This record gives sequence, structure tokens and C-alpha cells, in this order.
Amino acid sequence: MKRLILFLAFVAPLLLSAQTNKRVFSPQKNVMLEFSLDAKGNPGYRVAFAGIFAIENSSLGFTTKETDLSGGFRFVSAAITSHDETWKPVMGEVDHIRDQHNELLVRLINKDEYRMDIRFRVFNDGVGFRYEFPKDEGHNTLTFTDEKTAFQMGGDHTAWWIPGDYNSNEHVYTTSKISEINTDPYNQAEVAISAQHIVDKTNVQTPLTMRMADGKHISIAEAALVDFAAMHLQADVKNLRFKAFLIPSPDPAVKSINTLPFHTPWRAILLSEDAAGILNSKLILNLNDPSKLDDVSWIHPTKYVGIWWEMHVGNGTWDYAGGQDMSSATGRAPHGKHSANTANTKKYIDFAAKYGFDGVLVEGWNTGWEDWFGKWKDEVFSFTTPYPDYDIDELTRYAKEKGVKIIMHHETSAAVPSYERQMDDAYAYMKKYNMDAVKTGYVGQIIPRGEWHDGQWMVNHYVRVADRTAKNHIMLDAHEPVRPSGLGRTYPNWVACEAARGNEFNAWSRGNPPEHETILPFNRLLGGPMDYTPGIFETRMSTYKADKTEVVHTTVAKQLALYVTMYSPLAMAADLPENYEKRLDVFQFIRDVPLDYSESRVINASIGDYITYARREKGKDNWYIGSITDENPRHFDVKLDFLKAGKTYEATIYADGPGAHWKDNPYPVSITKKTVRKGDTLALDLAAGGGCAIEIK
Amino acid sequence: MKRLILFLAFVAPLLLSAQTNKRVFSPQKNVMLEFSLDAKGNPGYRVAFAGIFAIENSSLGFTTKETDLSGGFRFVSAAITSHDETWKPVMGEVDHIRDQHNELLVRLINKDEYRMDIRFRVFNDGVGFRYEFPKDEGHNTLTFTDEKTAFQMGGDHTAWWIPGDYNSNEHVYTTSKISEINTDPYNQAEVAISAQHIVDKTNVQTPLTMRMADGKHISIAEAALVDFAAMHLQADVKNLRFKAFLIPSPDPAVKSINTLPFHTPWRAILLSEDAAGILNSKLILNLNDPSKLDDVSWIHPTKYVGIWWEMHVGNGTWDYAGGQDMSSATGRAPHGKHSANTANTKKYIDFAAKYGFDGVLVEGWNTGWEDWFGKWKDEVFSFTTPYPDYDIDELTRYAKEKGVKIIMHHETSAAVPSYERQMDDAYAYMKKYNMDAVKTGYVGQIIPRGEWHDGQWMVNHYVRVADRTAKNHIMLDAHEPVRPSGLGRTYPNWVACEAARGNEFNAWSRGNPPEHETILPFNRLLGGPMDYTPGIFETRMSTYKADKTEVVHTTVAKQLALYVTMYSPLAMAADLPENYEKRLDVFQFIRDVPLDYSESRVINASIGDYITYARREKGKDNWYIGSITDENPRHFDVKLDFLKAGKTYEATIYADGPGAHWKDNPYPVSITKKTVRKGDTLALDLAAGGGCAIEIK
Repeated sequence: MKRLILFLAFVAPLLLSAQTNKRVFSPQKNVMLEFSLDAKGNPGYRVAFAGIFAIENSSLGFTTKETDLSGGFRFVSAAITSHDETWKPVMGEVDHIRDQHNELLVRLINKDEYRMDIRFRVFNDGVGFRYEFPKDEGHNTLTFTDEKTAFQMGGDHTAWWIPGDYNSNEHVYTTSKISEINTDPYNQAEVAISAQHIVDKTNVQTPLTMRMADGKHISIAEAALVDFAAMHLQADVKNLRFKAFLIPSPDPAVKSINTLPFHTPWRAILLSEDAAGILNSKLILNLNDPSKLDDVSWIHPTKYVGIWWEMHVGNGTWDYAGGQDMSSATGRAPHGKHSANTANTKKYIDFAAKYGFDGVLVEGWNTGWEDWFGKWKDEVFSFTTPYPDYDIDELTRYAKEKGVKIIMHHETSAAVPSYERQMDDAYAYMKKYNMDAVKTGYVGQIIPRGEWHDGQWMVNHYVRVADRTAKNHIMLDAHEPVRPSGLGRTYPNWVACEAARGNEFNAWSRGNPPEHETILPFNRLLGGPMDYTPGIFETRMSTYKADKTEVVHTTVAKQLALYVTMYSPLAMAADLPENYEKRLDVFQFIRDVPLDYSESRVINASIGDYITYARREKGKDNWYIGSITDENPRHFDVKLDFLKAGKTYEATIYADGPGAHWKDNPYPVSITKKTVRKGDTLALDLAAGGGCAIEIK
Repeated sequence: MKRLILFLAFVAPLLLSAQTNKRVFSPQKNVMLEFSLDAKGNPGYRVAFAGIFAIENSSLGFTTKETDLSGGFRFVSAAITSHDETWKPVMGEVDHIRDQHNELLVRLINKDEYRMDIRFRVFNDGVGFRYEFPKDEGHNTLTFTDEKTAFQMGGDHTAWWIPGDYNSNEHVYTTSKISEINTDPYNQAEVAISAQHIVDKTNVQTPLTMRMADGKHISIAEAALVDFAAMHLQADVKNLRFKAFLIPSPDPAVKSINTLPFHTPWRAILLSEDAAGILNSKLILNLNDPSKLDDVSWIHPTKYVGIWWEMHVGNGTWDYAGGQDMSSATGRAPHGKHSANTANTKKYIDFAAKYGFDGVLVEGWNTGWEDWFGKWKDEVFSFTTPYPDYDIDELTRYAKEKGVKIIMHHETSAAVPSYERQMDDAYAYMKKYNMDAVKTGYVGQIIPRGEWHDGQWMVNHYVRVADRTAKNHIMLDAHEPVRPSGLGRTYPNWVACEAARGNEFNAWSRGNPPEHETILPFNRLLGGPMDYTPGIFETRMSTYKADKTEVVHTTVAKQLALYVTMYSPLAMAADLPENYEKRLDVFQFIRDVPLDYSESRVINASIGDYITYARREKGKDNWYIGSITDENPRHFDVKLDFLKAGKTYEATIYADGPGAHWKDNPYPVSITKKTVRKGDTLALDLAAGGGCAIEIK
């Protein structure tokens, strides 16, 4: 503490030209936020953390069509308040979360008499701030044309980033210095993904997590993204500075149009001494509003199987009439391979019932799949019309008899007004057929044409769906939306999103590199759970077609560990039933692993290298450990100091077997049982691209 | 006839290079359509009419992203069929319409094996043709990038045109030679209207009606505009040729995306020896599909008054909280002038009941008017939330007691997905409150941002609204849509549109020139009735505010005549009740004039100069004559040869009174009664900007 105070005394003279300075410290005083208004009325801020300036003097504000909100302000008032509260998530990695922060509310007014308040919240693990535009006479609308919020770094940190794609976040992460950010390679044909739109070579997405030279970590993120364009970051690679970049509307000059009163989403800066601190941070959830739902009794963890991977590997198709699989997305030769037929769905229901799964996802059940992909067509899908070989009445009866829920699938092909027109009918249809969870999809270019997945219009759509599904007591899992920003707190039925490169890329592309899953928890997962669809036992695609060369870039043991390291209350066992039935001993871990926890501990973590988590099952004394590595084999000694003293536990360890390697030998899993006590140490040996999953009961 | 045949023999050699020619004649053989496919497989056509080529050799086809549909075709087959049928419109200018034509269906296939059929229908009053794309294996989608259909004129005709504005048709018409078309003046600030988007100086809208040097008339139009971009015309002013111009999607390169099978709207060419023939043509209605509605018993003519003009003249406002009138559209000073309050609405209901009107339109009844105009904002209006001073329960009860229907108003501010999300609720709300007609509005730039009023997406929206209102037994009057194309035949509940410059422009702009209403029936009205809102008795805006200079550019007698010359089954008496009660003798004509006719006769007509109609009330022997002129006074002798022989009628003549003049002396109306018989001649004297309305019973 003394170090910080001294440091501030030293740098204070730099700010003498400021008209007004206001400082606020975190409860533990390890983080300091300073707001400044300079002589020209330009607002700025900086953030100190553990003796350094994590954010050096940086600008604040906006340009709008109505008025200039980046300068010319007069100071009106400032107020500091304290907040300390503990709240309980409906489901999650922990069963309670403490929201302790000090808040500075600065009120400004500009030359045109527009008011702008900035609300800063300073936590022990970072800072959040948002802009607020109160309602006053004469000013009703703001048309935002640019955001001036900057984030001046103090060094050339190591960053893990994906490009500032307006339409997708399904990219492989790049690790580079800030000064080396360059998104050009993502536009090469062999790498590019469908509908991507990457226009600036130094724009990257948030959350953007970085490691400083001394091992400290910082992440720039967004919380509570509602009624505004998503914030990406424009990197000034020379000056090591980021500037907020708002995804535009179809009019490139217009980023967001809002009615007053209005406040922006939160700009969040996570700060930590180490990588683990980023994983432990609940800052983004704390910046989101509490649940809007009175009744959450119907929301539950859901482990599921489904008609899905068989299409990705080419065994079946989504469409009924054509021959659409992932290798011939628009062919139309007759084939008889439609997966979502009644008999096949019953097979999955039987499997789910037999092994204790909650749900069966069925993709391709509804009309529209013949010609949807890449066409930018409107009115493609019906969400209330099954294909003729899908007997929904019989399947509803059958699933109910077996105690399994069918999970609805709504692929919109990004024709969003068409989906919105059908939404009420579609949700009523789900309720009629006893379904309580839906997976939505937004593959392709958006209709309204000219809109982007990350623009204001779509942001509002995603929230609208969360709201309407909540009203219908439907759990939501959105695929291809903007990356989440913690809204699962406000809409607890919004249990998961995809919004990143999922496991299916391993089935038909260059795949996900072994480090992929060691990066996602540090950025994508900060905003909420991901439906990553792990659990692939048959990792070689040549099994399905001899000429295929694609492989899943992990060992099978790592596929198990992912259930622990990538937390989600909605989790798929993605592989085919027949692949699981061949290895029921290994499959046992997927059956056992819980999806809701009382506490979670990061045992070790290094971005892009490895993560080890230990988590205690909600309300129980059972622990689950997941440990994963990148392409390098690793040895970890995990001390079981979290167990209860004086108690004996049985550990079941699912480790990479002899000679395991993600590429050459993915299958071996050695399963051992061991009696353990508090203080014992478990020695884990992870293969290249491997992992380890442990159940301790 | 002989003249045409000779003529064709003469020009035939010009076509020798063609691979294939197919000809089809109209039933009376006065019109000939010739299709040709040249040696390169380029399709073309020409149209002969009464001894000339009204359309000289012109190209056909499209460019698409998938394949070239403008050339490289092989001829497959051609078939000619005849058609003769008479059908009855639900309401209209006539009680039966004969659809007599010969059809040529040409089947083509291109080098990529895409099929394109062209269906030509040749009537005695013109030609219609459309492109059809059958469903076949392997081809599912067409992404249209340009239409190659051309219309080669044979001379530098006189054209009455408005600019090819993507967003609006509310322009004053220009009269010029084809060679002089230049839309630049419309982009001058003092003339430009809200949200207009005019990008090409030689683009004009359809219908485009022209007069040839010899007095023949031709109109290029569109029929049955469904699921496609509206067709404007790109004028090649040097070569006197028009090319179809499709309004783009937000991606300027994409005009329309369609799933096969698909057919385009009809391209229509109306041909006539004189101006009256254009007015008499039912070709556009004949090209539209028959009614989709089984039950039309609930559709009825509607004469109405409403809370509307008082806002236009500045006496009241749409919004409750602010001070929004037409002269301060975004002010917010408290004012207490909200027109749609309970007491004022009752006043209109009383007036309607007393004078026999069917409906009372109430604008400004619902929340959202505080800040809607020109902001391009989403989620502005609620269509189920009345303002606090509008007691909808009481007014519903009151209106029912008085035997009057309240007409719903849905101004969307062009935020269309927001309207679509509310549509079902909004129509259920209307039914709950006993309403059976809605006036929709699309003021401003479209949301989805980047879409245009005349683009495919919006075209589909307008039809969707017609369809959904029909299902709810609601009559539809769309304001600010694409200009109609005869779809009122297919959706008889779609009783009227605005889609042109209405009477309200006279209240707060340079207004409508005296010739305006003598032009509209020749182009805008070809596609269906217009809700022009005539009947303004107090034509001087200085009556309302001393410093106002705007005037309605007609005499009061002409305002009466408009009810006859501009046919609509939905017609407003637009002025304030107090203005009518001051002149109940003149008002009597508005009370008496019917909105549905058995027959209609054009007595005389010259575009931009004058129009005189005589119409017989449906199923009765009462005749109504309306005669209007432009800025020039005129004398007409109208021979009553349409009356029944041997019968005596009483004519009530509402003529311009002594010294009447639209500008200096608009008010005088002389009302005389006269006994008349078949063969009598009535001498009409129309003032400058004047008119005459006659009831013969």
C-alpha cells in the first residue's frame, strides 16, 4: 500500500494542468482510479494497480451527431459511495459472489448543455465505468458516431487476441505483443471463416487479456452490453494504446442511436497479479444488473446429447430433401441421410435415458435446411414445421415416458426479423411439446442486411430473445451471437452461448490448436459460459471417411477435463452414442461430472499453456479436478489442501494413458482409483495436448 | 389493322438475324408483341400499337450472382393461349372488369442450365410480361444484381415524372421531354422532403406516363409487386430509352434474393390513343392475382373524418408531453395541445354520427410521439398503449353507441421490425376495441437501417401487413409505402395507400400545384386508390396563424370534385368539423358522394390540364360528375348521354362561384339545382385551380 501512495505522490505533478481531479480507491486500496478534466474540458482517467499505472492517462467520451461529448465539459459534481453485497447466482462456478467496490460518480455538462455522467466502480480486481446520459428538457436522442474511450498501456504486453470481426468470434487466437497486432492473416482464404468481416488490421475483440512483463495481467472487457454496439478495440501499435471501436450500423457513420435517459454498457478493466486472478474475477458479473426474473425454479443444469456431431462428421445431414453435409453444404442429390428422423431421435432418447442425461438436442428437425447456407435469404426456416420424417407428437410422448427433455433448435441463418416474427409461435410450440431449452443459431450474414452480429440492432435482438424466452420459462443457449458480457446474471435463463470457436471446427477445418482451450477461459469465458460441446472420444475423422485428415487436437482425457476447466451449466456429450458405448469406463466421468458448484479454485494457470481447476459440487463435498495443457506435456503436483480435514475420499483419476499424444495417440486413458485425504498430493502427467480429469468423493 | 400488318411486313427484315421470333397479338389485333432471341442468345422484344412501334427492339433479362440471365440462352419452346374472363372487384370504379388477352409463354435455358420463362400477356390496351424461374435440381437461389429489361421509345415523348427516390414518392410532378429528364432540382434544400434519397439524375419512378407527338399515350408500370425490389426507370436521355432500375438492398450490388421457383412482378406497358384510355385501362388490375380472401363481406367503403388536419395546421399536436406540431417537430415545451384526447375525440365522433360518416381516424392516440421524427430510432411507438388523456375504453363504448367506428393509426416511424414484433398484439388490440380499419405510416428512414421504402425487404413487409390485417378482418390504408401495383385486387382489404404527395403538403410546404390532381390519376392511381384526404374548405393557413402564407392550391369547389376524380373507397373529409358546419350546404356533396360505383366514364382528360369523370353509384341510377382543372380556367360542355332515356333526374351542381380563383378567391361555391334528361348538356365553368361537382339523382 505504501508503495502505491508514494508512487501517486510522485506522479501527481503531471496532472497539475487539470481543471479537476477525482480519485477513488478499491476497498483494499490496491487499485486507484483517477478521473481528470483538463483545462479544455476534456475528460480523462488513469488506473493504478499494485504500484504501477495499469492504464496511463487516457481519454474518455464520444462524438455524436447532436453534440460533442469528448471535450468542452464543465465539472458539475462528484460523489463517492461504497458498496458491499453478496449475491447468489442461480447456477455457476461458485454459490455466492461478493460485490465490494467504491464508486465515483462524476457529473459533467458540455457547452450545448448536454449532461454526461461517468460512473466508476473500483474493485479489488479492477475497474468498471460507464457513461450515463440523463433525461433533460430539449435533449431526447444521441446518435453516437465514435467512442473516444482509450486504454493507454504502460508497456508492450503479450496479448491473446482474435481479430475485430464484425460478424464472428469463431477465430483461432493469436499470441503477440501489442506492437505486433496484425489481423491480415485472418483474411487469407485458407483461414477465413464464413461471413467474416475484418476491415481493420489492428482491430481486435474484447475481452482482450494481456500479460505484462512482470507477470501482472490486465483484461479490457465489456459488461452488460444492452442497446449499444459491441466494443472492439482499435490498437495503436506504435503508442501501445487501445481505443474503443463500436461496431457500426448499416450506415458506417452511425454506431448507436439511443433515447435519453440512457447509459452505455460498462467498460471493464480486470487487474491481477497473475493469470489465475483473471479466472477468479467476478467483476464482469458484478457490473451486470441482478436477475430480472422473480421465479428461477425452472432453471436447471442440463447435460445433454444430441443429433449434431453425426452431421459434422458427415454421417448424416440437417436437411431432408438434399444432401447437405459439412462437405457439400448446398448439394441436392437424394441421399436418405436425414439425421433428425423419428427412429434416430428415439435412439438418442434411449441413450440419454439409459445414462442419465437431461436432454437430447435435435438439429435439422424443421423445414428450411435445403438451401439456407451462405445465401443471405429471408424467410428460410419455419420454427413450427417438422420435416415429414420427424414425428414430433410421438417423440414428445416417448421422451416424456423416458424422462428426457428434447432440446429445441432454432437456426435462423441470421434472418432475424423472420425469426422475430415467428418467435411467439415458436416458443408456444416448444411449450406445447414440453421443451424448456432452445439452442439458437445465427450462421451467416445478418438480415436486416447491412447489420452486423455485433451491432446495436443485433445486440438488442439477443437481449430480446433472452427476455422472451424467460417469459416463456425457456432456457437459452445462443450460438453465433456477440460474445457475452455477463448478462446471464440478469437473465439467468440465458445459460450459455457459443460466441467463440467451438469443438466442431475440429471436424471439418484446420481445427482448434491444442492451446485453444487454455486461452478461452481468459477472455471469451469472462462474459459467461460457453457451449463448447466437448466429449469427443473418436477424434480422428478418417474413422468416418477414409480420405479425411482432420483430427480433434486433444487427447480423450483432455476431452474429459474440459468439462471442468470450461465451466458451463449446459454441457453436451457431443460424440456419437456408439462411441461412448465402446468406452463406458471413460464415459463414466462425463456422466458423473456436475454442472453446478459451490466453490472453484484455480490450482494453476498460464494463458495459452495450461489450466488446472478444482471445483466442489454444489452443496456437496465432492470435488472435481480438471487439468489441461497445450501442445506441451506437463507434470503437475496438485496438493489437496481444499479437502476437509480428517475425512477420507475416493479419487477416480482419468489420466492420459501410456504414450498418449493428441496427434499420434489420442485414445489411451488410464483410469485409477485412490484413497486421498486433505494435504495429499496428486501427481498429474499430462500428455502433449492432453489433460486429466479427477473425481474425488 | 391493315396498316399494322403492312407495317410489320416492312420491318420484318430487320429481325432476320434473330435465332427465334415469336409474335402474339391482342384480341382486337391492335397490339402486337414480338419476342426475339438473337444469334447470341440475347432475348429481346418490341411492341407495336396502332401502326407504330410503341416499344422498339429492347433487351430482356437480368444479371445475377449465380448466372448470366441476360444472354446466352437457347430457345426451348413457346406456347400461345387465349384468355377471356370477367371478374368483379369488391369495391371500385366499376362493378365488373373484363380480362381479355392472349398469352405467349417462351421457355429459355442458359449455358449454366438455368431456366428462364417469359410470360407475355397482350391486351387491347397494352402488354404485360414477367420472368419466371422454375424449380429444378441444383438451382435454388437467384441473387439479382441488375435488370436488363429496356423500353426503347420511338420518340422524345412528353413525360410526367417524379424522381427515382428510393424512399418516397411524395414529390411534385415535372412535365418534360424524355430528353430533358433531370432530377437535380429535387435535391435542392427548399424543395427536398424528409428522408428522400435521389442518387441518379435521370432515374424516375413508375408508373411513367407519356404522350407521343401524335397524341397517343404510353405508360410503363409494374403490377403485382411481391417479393422483389420496386422497378424504377433509368432514362437514357440521348437514346430515348428506359432501363429497369431495381431499388437495392443495403448491399448496393444486391437487388433481390429469391428462392426458386420464383417469378418477378409484371412489367406493364399501357397503350392508348388518348389520355382517357390510360384512365380507363384495367390492365394493371388484370395482371394481379385474384382475391386471396374467401370472405370479403366485412370490407366496406369508408367515409371518415378525423383528428389529423388540426395537427397539420398547427392547432394541436400528436404528442402528449411535448410541443410537436408541423412547425416545431421536435420541441418539448409544455403546451396542453394534445389533440387525441377523450373530449376532442368525442367531438369528432359526434360530428361523424350527425353527418353520417362511417369512421373517425385518431392520430396521436398512442405513446411514442415525443421524439420520433427524423431520428432513425428503434422501438419508438407502442401500438397498444394510449396516452393517459385518451380513454380508449370509454371512447370505444361511445363510438359504438353512436354507430361510428374509430379508425386505428399505426405510425411506425419506419422502424419496421419493431412494428412487426408488435403486429399480432396490435391487431388483437384493434379487434378488442371494435376497430376494423388501420392507417399505417412509414415516415422517415427505414429500420432495418440501410433498407429503402422501395426495396425487396420493405415490399415484403407491406404485403405481410396486408396479409395479416386480412386474416384479422382489418382494412388497410398504408401511408408512405412503395406505390401500389394493383395488389388491392389480391388483398381486397388493402383498400387504399397514400404513396404520393397528399393534400397535407398544402398546409406546411410549397404545397401541390393546381395541376397536381390532374396528373395523379395517370400514374400513381393506376396501381390503386389513394387516400388523398380532400375536402379542405378553409384553404388559407393564415386563418390559423396570422403569419402563415401557405394555401391549398384549389378552390373549394375543386376540393369537392376530387372525391369523384380521384377514386377511393376510403375517403376522408379532411377539414375541421367547425369549418364544415359553417358551410353545410357545400358540405352536403361530401356527405352524398358514394365511394363505390357500377360504372365510370371519362368525359374528357388531358394530363396535367383537366379531368372530368362521370360515375354511376353502385347498383343505383345516381350519377356523380367531377371535373377539375389546373391553373387555367376552363369551360366544358358535358353531354349527359349516359343517363337513362325517358327518365328525369335532378342535378345538384356545386360550381366555382363568381370570381373564384384558387389563390385569390378560393371560397365561392355556387350551388344550383336543375332538372336534366339524357342528351342534355351541362355547361361547366371551372375557375383557375377550380372544379365542379355534380350529383344527378
